Amino acid sequence: MKIKVATIDKGGKDKLYTPLIEHFLKISRPFATIEVIDIFNKSIIRGHEEGVIQSKHSYSEAFANHFSANGVNIALDPNGIVVDSFDIAKILKDKNSVTFFIGGAYGLEESFVQQCNKCISFGKITLSHKLAKVVLLEQIFRALAINNNHPYHK
Amino acid sequence: MKIKVATIDKGGKDKLYTPLIEHFLKISRPFATIEVIDIFNKSIIRGHEEGVIQSKHSYSEAFANHFSANGVNIALDPNGIVVDSFDIAKILKDKNSVTFFIGGAYGLEESFVQQCNKCISFGKITLSHKLAKVVLLEQIFRALAINNNHPYHK
Repeated sequence: MKIKVATIDKGGKDKLYTPLIEHFLKISRPFATIEVIDIFNKSIIRGHEEGVIQSKHSYSEAFANHFSANGVNIALDPNGIVVDSFDIAKILKDKNSVTFFIGGAYGLEESFVQQCNKCISFGKITLSHKLAKVVLLEQIFRALAINNNHPYHK
Repeated sequence: MKIKVATIDKGGKDKLYTPLIEHFLKISRPFATIEVIDIFNKSIIRGHEEGVIQSKHSYSEAFANHFSANGVNIALDPNGIVVDSFDIAKILKDKNSVTFFIGGAYGLEESFVQQCNKCISFGKITLSHKLAKVVLLEQIFRALAINNNHPYHK
């Protein structure tokens, strides 16, 4: 199966988060191909200068190219349905293609969230988008482990 | 102020988590001294061999030495009150000493949780104890930033 994680992030390697991100991609490889898509462009910079509404709109535009017409699209938003690790396993189970979208500093636009198949939340705490990406990748691996009877989740 | 984070963990440096842990300790330093206490001993190993009840009891014994008689003690448990970052800020506000306890693979013993001033949860997802430690440290820094009007949380 193919999983994409699309985020509003400048990307590039850094000493703090890249080793962990690469670790979870590597240990997930027996079960799924995971691609991390970091997007940051001039429209997002302009949005951040202009305000919340413009920012959210620039994220939707950036994500539009990565929206999967045939696959499952999942938004991550603090206002989404609070899920546990087994719920994420159910989301991934028997799917060919799943794309997760993590919003930028201002979250996601309501109209974008509505286009997604599901909007999920990991809880009420605010995480930096970089740490949210790490937590999502750990949860994806945990979910793959559950679906493949791998002992990690026990 | 002084903050302690006590966990059931073998400790030692690793390439994946240590850089992030040290990063959050460093950026928190203007606001608080944070000490991470990783505990793993023979009683915990024996507990893990024997079962859930024995494991949880071994965590309580290990944590007893670090329970603060004069400070605030906070248990982290999936069954706790789901908090957001502002709730954590309130927990830390104007305190001299706060200790957080993250349980081991089997969580925390009910009698230990009851001795704490509060039992909090970050949501329903299961995180590895190492990632839970990183998320807690990020939340502590975020809470300190809120209480000190530092722009990180915005």
